[in-house]
Amino acid sequence: MSATKTWILTNVDKNIWKENLFLGHDDLGVADCTVAKTRLEGGVRDGVDLVEVTNADLSFSVLPTRGMSLWKGFYRGFPIGWESPIKGPVHPHWVDELDRGGLGWLKGFDECIVRCGLDSNGGPGEDIIIDNNGNSTSVNLTLHGKIANLPAHYLEIKADPESSTVSVLGEVDESALFLPGLRLRSTISTTAGSNRLRIEDEIINLKATPSELELLYHCNFGQPFLGARSKLLAPILEVAPRDARAVQGIQQINTYLPPTKGYVEQVYFYDLVEDSSNQTLVALRNASKDRGVVLRFSKKELPYFTQWKNTSALSDGYVTGLEPGTNYPNLKRFEREKNRVIRLEPGQSYHCQLTLEICTSRKEVEAIEKEIDCLQSGYRMTIHQSPQPKYTPI
Amino acid sequence: MSATKTWILTNVDKNIWKENLFLGHDDLGVADCTVAKTRLEGGVRDGVDLVEVTNADLSFSVLPTRGMSLWKGFYRGFPIGWESPIKGPVHPHWVDELDRGGLGWLKGFDECIVRCGLDSNGGPGEDIIIDNNGNSTSVNLTLHGKIANLPAHYLEIKADPESSTVSVLGEVDESALFLPGLRLRSTISTTAGSNRLRIEDEIINLKATPSELELLYHCNFGQPFLGARSKLLAPILEVAPRDARAVQGIQQINTYLPPTKGYVEQVYFYDLVEDSSNQTLVALRNASKDRGVVLRFSKKELPYFTQWKNTSALSDGYVTGLEPGTNYPNLKRFEREKNRVIRLEPGQSYHCQLTLEICTSRKEVEAIEKEIDCLQSGYRMTIHQSPQPKYTPI
Amino acid sequence: MSATKTWILTNVDKNIWKENLFLGHDDLGVADCTVAKTRLEGGVRDGVDLVEVTNADLSFSVLPTRGMSLWKGFYRGFPIGWESPIKGPVHPHWVDELDRGGLGWLKGFDECIVRCGLDSNGGPGEDIIIDNNGNSTSVNLTLHGKIANLPAHYLEIKADPESSTVSVLGEVDESALFLPGLRLRSTISTTAGSNRLRIEDEIINLKATPSELELLYHCNFGQPFLGARSKLLAPILEVAPRDARAVQGIQQINTYLPPTKGYVEQVYFYDLVEDSSNQTLVALRNASKDRGVVLRFSKKELPYFTQWKNTSALSDGYVTGLEPGTNYPNLKRFEREKNRVIRLEPGQSYHCQLTLEICTSRKEVEAIEKEIDCLQSGYRMTIHQSPQPKYTPI
Repeated sequence: MSATKTWILTNVDKNIWKENLFLGHDDLGVADCTVAKTRLEGGVRDGVDLVEVTNADLSFSVLPTRGMSLWKGFYRGFPIGWESPIKGPVHPHWVDELDRGGLGWLKGFDECIVRCGLDSNGGPGEDIIIDNNGNSTSVNLTLHGKIANLPAHYLEIKADPESSTVSVLGEVDESALFLPGLRLRSTISTTAGSNRLRIEDEIINLKATPSELELLYHCNFGQPFLGARSKLLAPILEVAPRDARAVQGIQQINTYLPPTKGYVEQVYFYDLVEDSSNQTLVALRNASKDRGVVLRFSKKELPYFTQWKNTSALSDGYVTGLEPGTNYPNLKRFEREKNRVIRLEPGQSYHCQLTLEICTSRKEVEAIEKEIDCLQSGYRMTIHQSPQPKYTPI
Repeated sequence: MSATKTWILTNVDKNIWKENLFLGHDDLGVADCTVAKTRLEGGVRDGVDLVEVTNADLSFSVLPTRGMSLWKGFYRGFPIGWESPIKGPVHPHWVDELDRGGLGWLKGFDECIVRCGLDSNGGPGEDIIIDNNGNSTSVNLTLHGKIANLPAHYLEIKADPESSTVSVLGEVDESALFLPGLRLRSTISTTAGSNRLRIEDEIINLKATPSELELLYHCNFGQPFLGARSKLLAPILEVAPRDARAVQGIQQINTYLPPTKGYVEQVYFYDLVEDSSNQTLVALRNASKDRGVVLRFSKKELPYFTQWKNTSALSDGYVTGLEPGTNYPNLKRFEREKNRVIRLEPGQSYHCQLTLEICTSRKEVEAIEKEIDCLQSGYRMTIHQSPQPKYTPI
Repeated sequence: MSATKTWILTNVDKNIWKENLFLGHDDLGVADCTVAKTRLEGGVRDGVDLVEVTNADLSFSVLPTRGMSLWKGFYRGFPIGWESPIKGPVHPHWVDELDRGGLGWLKGFDECIVRCGLDSNGGPGEDIIIDNNGNSTSVNLTLHGKIANLPAHYLEIKADPESSTVSVLGEVDESALFLPGLRLRSTISTTAGSNRLRIEDEIINLKATPSELELLYHCNFGQPFLGARSKLLAPILEVAPRDARAVQGIQQINTYLPPTKGYVEQVYFYDLVEDSSNQTLVALRNASKDRGVVLRFSKKELPYFTQWKNTSALSDGYVTGLEPGTNYPNLKRFEREKNRVIRLEPGQSYHCQLTLEICTSRKEVEAIEKEIDCLQSGYRMTIHQSPQPKYTPI
C-alpha cells in the first residue's frame, strides 16, 4: 500500500513558495496523471499562478491567484469553458470591482467555474450592515463579491496512489479587521482516466462573531457543449423567470439559440428535485445528443439553482451559466429577507461539493437523460410564466 | 534585398514572453539603430515593461504596460516630454481611476504622448448608456478613460533593413463581457538618422454590436521646448477658450509664460486648416526659434485639436499639452450631442497617424513656420473671445 | 575611526535595484547586527519588499512597499505588534481604498507601526478643497489616507561602526499633477544591543504652492504586552471620550480587558504633559508589571495623542493603538476647523521623531512608571466624562 504524497507550493506562514513545479507519473505515483504549476507572464495574466492537472483524457487548470477558480478544461480534445472577450486569466490587480457602478468584476471574468461570494454575491447595490461600532451603515456591494479576486495563501498538491487520485488544495481568506472573516478551503480532485473532477469546499467563519455567507458556483460553458438547440436537462419542481426579458423566453427555457447578435441575457431561478440522499444534477447537452457537461451536487448544500442564458455572438461571449448556490444571485438584501443567506457561527464551517462530469457519446448522454427523467418522475414541474416574489424582487 | 525581421516579445495566446531583449545594429540590420526591452524595478515603476529605441540622434521609449504610451524621448541631448511630479513610469496597479472623484488617472500621468480613450476620454462624470439588459443606466466615467492603464497582450519589434526602419508593435484590449470591446493595434516607428517618429494606430471594434470610440493623443512638452515666450504655431480656422479662465489669456493664446507659481491651467479648442490631402500640423517652438517639436496628422482622422497650457512651477509640472483627437476632451455626453463621438460597426476599424518631429536649428524651425503660414494663407483666423456652445457646455 | 557605510538598494532615478541583500556583522562593521532585504512571495504578500534588522536582542522589519511601515518586531522572544485577521504584510495592490465606503485601507492593516497621512488621515468622508482650476470641489477622503499603500522609490541601509548604529532610510512620494505633492523621508535606526528603535521622519512639500499635512503614527500592540489588566501609562493634562461608546469605559480608561468577544472599540483623545524640552512618553505595561512598550516623542512635533482600545477576541484582532499625531483622527474638515491641520509652505519640511522602547523586567517597567509619575506631578489630570467639542464633532 502506497501512502498519500504531498507537495506544498505556497504557505505564507512558513515562507514556503515554489514558482514552478512539474510532477510526472512517477512523482505522483499515479499513472496517466501529471501536475504542472507555473506563473504566467505578459498582458493581464502577468503574475497569475496556474496549476494544470492532466488525467489521461481530462485536463483542467486551477487559478490560485483568482480564488481557486477553475479556469478551463479539456476532455478528449473538447474545450470545457467559454471564450470571454478578454485574453485571461486576469490578475486581480487589473480588476477594479467598484468600476462601472460596481460591475468591475466582469473585467476578470473568463473562467469555466468561478465562485461568487463569500460575504455576498449577486448584482451590485446597497446593503445595510452593522459596522464595527455597532451602528447601522450602508455599504456598496460589488457584483459577485470578492473571492474570485483574492489569492491563495496556501497551495498543496496531493496524490493518492491507492485511489489513483490527484488533488489541488488551496486556502483563500476574505478577511480583515472589522470586515467579514471567511476562509475558503478548496480541494479539486480527479482520478486517473476518469471523466470527472470534484470540487470540495469548506468555508469557515474565522471570527468570534457570527458571519453571513453567500456562495454560488458560476459554471460557464460555451462551444462545443453549447450550440444551437443544445438543451438544459434538469429535474424541476419549479422554475420562474427573473424579469420581463426572461418571460420572453419562457416557452424555450431549456433550449439554446446559436450565437445571436445583440442577444440580451435571460435568467431563470429553479427549485430542483433531489433524491433520497439530497443529490441532484443538471446537464447541458448538444443538439445531436453526443456531448454533454453534467453538474452533480447536493440540494442540501446548494439548494438554489440559477440558469443564465447569454447566447450572444461568439465575439461577445457565447455562454450559458449553470449556477448552483446557497442563494439566488439577487441583491443580498433581498436574499436575506427570503432567508437565503447563511449564518455561520464563530468557527463554524459550511461544506459544499460539486462534481463536473463530461459526456462525449450518445450512450453517456442518454444515461444522464434517463437519470434526470427518473428523478423527475413523480414530481410535477411548475413553470411560472412570470416573475415570482419569492425568487425575484418585483 | 534584405527581408523584414521580426521579434515577438509578448504573445499571450502562444505563451510567448521575453522579459529582456537587446537588439544591436547587426541584429536589426539597420545601422545606427538599437532596441532594448527591459522590465523596470522599484518604486511605482516596478514591473513596468519598457522598450527603448535609438536611431543615431533620436531615442524614445514605449510603455507596453501603459497602453503603448510614449514615455520620453531624447534628441541630440534634448529631452522630449516633461517633468511630472511623479517618479514614473507608473505601473497601472498604482492607479485607482475612481479616486479623487474620478481623477485617479493623474497618478499615472507622466508620459510625453499618452492616449486618452478608447471608450471615453475627457473629464470625469456621469454618462447614460444602454446596459447589457437593454436598460438605460448611469455610469461614472473616469478622467481620460482606461487605455493608458491597460497592458499589451502582444508586443513585437520589426526591422526593415531596406527602408532602415525600426518599429514597435503592440496590441492592447479594452474589453470584457458586457463592456465595450475595443482593440488598439499600435505601430511606433522611426528611420535611422531621422528626427521623427511615427505612431500608426488602428482601433478595432471586437464586438458584434456597434461601439463608441473617443481617442485623443495627449502630447506633452516641457523644457527645453517649452519656456518663456515659446510659441504655439498652428494654421487656424477658429479657436475658442474653454472657460472664464481661458478667456483671461485669449490675447496671448499662442505665447507661453515661464514657470509660474500658482498658474491655473488654460484650455483652448481649435479648428485647424488642413491641406488638400487633409494633412495639418502644429508646432511648439522656443523663444529663440532654434528648437521646436512638431506634430503632423490628418484632420480627417483627428479633426479636433486642443491646447492645454499649464505653465505652473517646475516642481508642479511645467507643461503644455498639444492634443489632436477625434473629439474635444469634454464630458462624453456633450461630445456625443455634438456628433464628435465615433461609432464603430462590428469588426470596423479606425485608423490614425501621428508624426512627432524635432527641430534643433533656426533653419528647421523657420521651415515649419513657413509651412504653417502657407497653410494659413487664404484662411481667415477667428479667435473667439468667449466660450462657444459648439465647443464647450456653457 | 571607521566611517559610515552605505548600501543603496533602490534608487529609481539611477535605475538602482537590489532584490535581495544580506549584511552580516562584518559587512556592517557593527557587532551583533544584521540586515536582510528580501522580496516576499505568495498570497497577498507577493511582491512585498521586507527589510529585517536584528540587533542582539531586538529585531524588527520595515516595509518599503507599504510606505516604510514597521511591520513587526521581536524582543528577547516577545513579539511586538499584533495579530490582524489577515495574513500580511499586504501588497498595496490588494488594497482598494475606496471599497466599503472608503474603509478599504483596513484590508492592508496588520502593521505594528503604520503612518496615517500624509494629505489626510482619520475616518473616510467628504472634504472640500480648492482644485487645480481654483474651484471649490468635494473629494472623498478614504480612511487614514494613502501613505501606507505607497512604495519607496529610494531605499538605503546605513551602518555607523562608531556609534554601533544601523539605519534603514526610505523615501516615499505621495504626489501627482494637480494633487498634493508630499515626500516622506524616513530613517529607522537601532543601536547594537539596545532595546530601542527610533523613527525619524521628514515630510517635505515638493510643490510650489502651500500644502496641508496630517500625520499620525498608528502604533499597535497585542499580546503579550496587551492582556487582561494591562495598563496605559501616560502623563495627562486632559482626556476625553470620543463618543457615547467611549463614555461607557471612562472609569477604566487606562485598564485593558482580556480578549472579549463582540467588544466594540473605544477611543479617547488626550492632551499630555511634556517636559521642559517638549518630550513626553506613554507606555503599555502588562498586569504583572514585567513587560512594557514605551513610546517617546516630542509634544511639539506630535502634540495630539489618541488611544484606541480594541480588545475583541484574538481571532478578530486583539489590539490597542497608541497614536501620537499632528492631529486627532477625526474627519479632516473638523481637524482643519480646530487648527490641527499643518500647513507646509513650498519646500518646507516637517520633522517628527518617535522612539519605541521595550521593557522586559519589573525594574525597567518601574523606571518608566516613575518617569511618567514624575512628569504628572504638579499637573492636575482632567478626565472628561463626556465628549468635548474641541476634540470631537458633537
